[in-house]
Amino acid sequence: MTGELAPSPVLGLDSSKVQIEQTSNPRTRPPSESLIFGQSFSDHMLVVPWSSQTGWDTPKIQPYAPLTLDPSSVIFHYAPSLFEGMKAYKDKDGKCRLFRPDMNMRRMNTSADRLALPTFDGGELTQLIRKLVSIDSTWVPNEPGHSMYIRPTLIGTQAALGVNQTSDALLFVITSPVGPYYKTGFKPVSLSADPSQVRAWPGGVGQYKLGANYAPGIKPQMQAATKGYHQNLWLFGDEAWLTEVGTMNLFVVVKGQDGVTELVTPPLNGMILPGVTRDSILSLARGHASGSAPIAGLPKQLRVVEREMNMAEVMAHSDRGSLLEMFGAGTAAVVSPVERVGYKGRDIMIPTGEGGAGNVAKAMLGEIDAIQRGERASHPWSVLVD
Amino acid sequence: MTGELAPSPVLGLDSSKVQIEQTSNPRTRPPSESLIFGQSFSDHMLVVPWSSQTGWDTPKIQPYAPLTLDPSSVIFHYAPSLFEGMKAYKDKDGKCRLFRPDMNMRRMNTSADRLALPTFDGGELTQLIRKLVSIDSTWVPNEPGHSMYIRPTLIGTQAALGVNQTSDALLFVITSPVGPYYKTGFKPVSLSADPSQVRAWPGGVGQYKLGANYAPGIKPQMQAATKGYHQNLWLFGDEAWLTEVGTMNLFVVVKGQDGVTELVTPPLNGMILPGVTRDSILSLARGHASGSAPIAGLPKQLRVVEREMNMAEVMAHSDRGSLLEMFGAGTAAVVSPVERVGYKGRDIMIPTGEGGAGNVAKAMLGEIDAIQRGERASHPWSVLVD
Repeated sequence: MTGELAPSPVLGLDSSKVQIEQTSNPRTRPPSESLIFGQSFSDHMLVVPWSSQTGWDTPKIQPYAPLTLDPSSVIFHYAPSLFEGMKAYKDKDGKCRLFRPDMNMRRMNTSADRLALPTFDGGELTQLIRKLVSIDSTWVPNEPGHSMYIRPTLIGTQAALGVNQTSDALLFVITSPVGPYYKTGFKPVSLSADPSQVRAWPGGVGQYKLGANYAPGIKPQMQAATKGYHQNLWLFGDEAWLTEVGTMNLFVVVKGQDGVTELVTPPLNGMILPGVTRDSILSLARGHASGSAPIAGLPKQLRVVEREMNMAEVMAHSDRGSLLEMFGAGTAAVVSPVERVGYKGRDIMIPTGEGGAGNVAKAMLGEIDAIQRGERASHPWSVLVD
Repeated sequence: MTGELAPSPVLGLDSSKVQIEQTSNPRTRPPSESLIFGQSFSDHMLVVPWSSQTGWDTPKIQPYAPLTLDPSSVIFHYAPSLFEGMKAYKDKDGKCRLFRPDMNMRRMNTSADRLALPTFDGGELTQLIRKLVSIDSTWVPNEPGHSMYIRPTLIGTQAALGVNQTSDALLFVITSPVGPYYKTGFKPVSLSADPSQVRAWPGGVGQYKLGANYAPGIKPQMQAATKGYHQNLWLFGDEAWLTEVGTMNLFVVVKGQDGVTELVTPPLNGMILPGVTRDSILSLARGHASGSAPIAGLPKQLRVVEREMNMAEVMAHSDRGSLLEMFGAGTAAVVSPVERVGYKGRDIMIPTGEGGAGNVAKAMLGEIDAIQRGERASHPWSVLVD
């Protein structure tokens, strides 16, 4: 535990050096209707080792295969792990597209820095991911609502038990064809808001996409399920501030005192994951509100606000009839409408509108899905794979 | 994310079924004077897979070897990992002894339950660890201060990306011969007490020995090092309550208003790891204070208190000359004296006494070391391996 910084990496991540080993046993993609999230994986994976002595090694795209690691490897003991979730979509011309990969790369580097894991040139990793998706493009389903989930992961791998900056790391990317989150219309979820379960804290790591933020949420989710709720609404502090829902960001739609519809999400206060979908919704809603890029289905007047909201305010809006919508936002579902929140023995019912989702959630899903599938000509958020 | 509980394990952990495969290539233990913590590993390891369908599989003691896991295995993504740290010591008759293994087993099960990982019969795992240590007993150094570090680890291994209770897990135990924490007398440490860095919080997981609690502490430690401190003194809240130091529990010795020496450690309030060394120090100090088991070197009158202490109190004691000692407590070092705490631009100096440690720290190390090495006849904390 010397606390010394590792020497600067000798080599940066370089996509031009990629070595490609095609699988000799290509598998058949499972039928699109049978896909379950994160259970089937494409034929190839990207692997890039790093060491503090030599920096980023030669990137390799190779057949999907197990990782072999010493049992003393720090990943098994101290949770030096972080990841991203992104997707490749097929457009109407059959071409593969990524959605805002620059946002994932930036966040991944922020997470890496927080864990004293190596950072890298995000543009280079995006190039490597494009190559990987291109090679496995037959694994990207083209049915509506289908996509290929992409999981960039970075883990510390040094084989030694000290709690120190790791001298070795492994960056890898696996991909998984996925079906639509909602097979038949929206399925609104119910949330248990239990103040005794705390996901994140000021000065903690809630704003980073670390493995460490996920395993501790599993038991609270199971406890919510035994009480008849799907997920947790994560609260913070004595005032019961709303933070996130399950593994998603949270949006609430209310009617303000002045009658204007307000789209609210908690600010990036250190406890909130800076979600790509969160950012996209805010940006699109602001474009609509300013009149620069109107979106069909959204109320003409819309106030878009990042601010704290607590359970007292949610209940007051509910009592007053001004609680219009609540939804989670994330890469897996884009939006996930909420129909009920259990809090201190009370069930707060939330309108979900026709088909199980409110107007704002539906409009946001429609617009983001259109951009992801390349239906908004030359939109800068949609990046062709090749 | 169904939230359903896994079916009850069909089979419990059963040490009587252990299968032993001796290595065909025994290695030579490195010279005792060259040992670095957690960098050399003994010839054998214990491995026990678990699945929700079949429960605990046949335990195997086998040659130390890498683990092979699918890249989608949840351990690489969501940090379902927990561990214990314990040691085997050689007594004057050359026999191997464990120290309070029941405490480690209980805590490991508590950690497993918190992560929705499988629990097990702690007595059975202790039996398996005894067998493992017995097989590698030549790897236990017998020089004073030397021991064999034992690392039981439990990880979730399901090959699927959902954030759910894992359907598969792996329990493994590796062992590592280690030298004395202090080769030549005590080396008191300096601590950076930075209120902006928060290790744990109420409703979080700070009281469990999870991998997730360790990686986030590495960068703060590096930042402390750049400011000239060895480790972090973890504070909590606006009142700057003391919680832990680095990866150890914290003890402070002060002279009370009534002139009586007070040994203080923060209570198990949900943010404090229930350390085995912490518990042992409290128990021994209480035995001394009550007169039932006096320990040489401790002040005759001693008040042993689990209570909150904040930085204001530390500074007041320092100003008044009643701050007598501060030390970390853990399995690696037993005690680790603190000589300086940096807080809000001020360096608080702490007496460390002759040889680098205060009377209480020295007496505690002496007594615990004697018990660990079997020098306190038939002490219940010391368990013969065979």
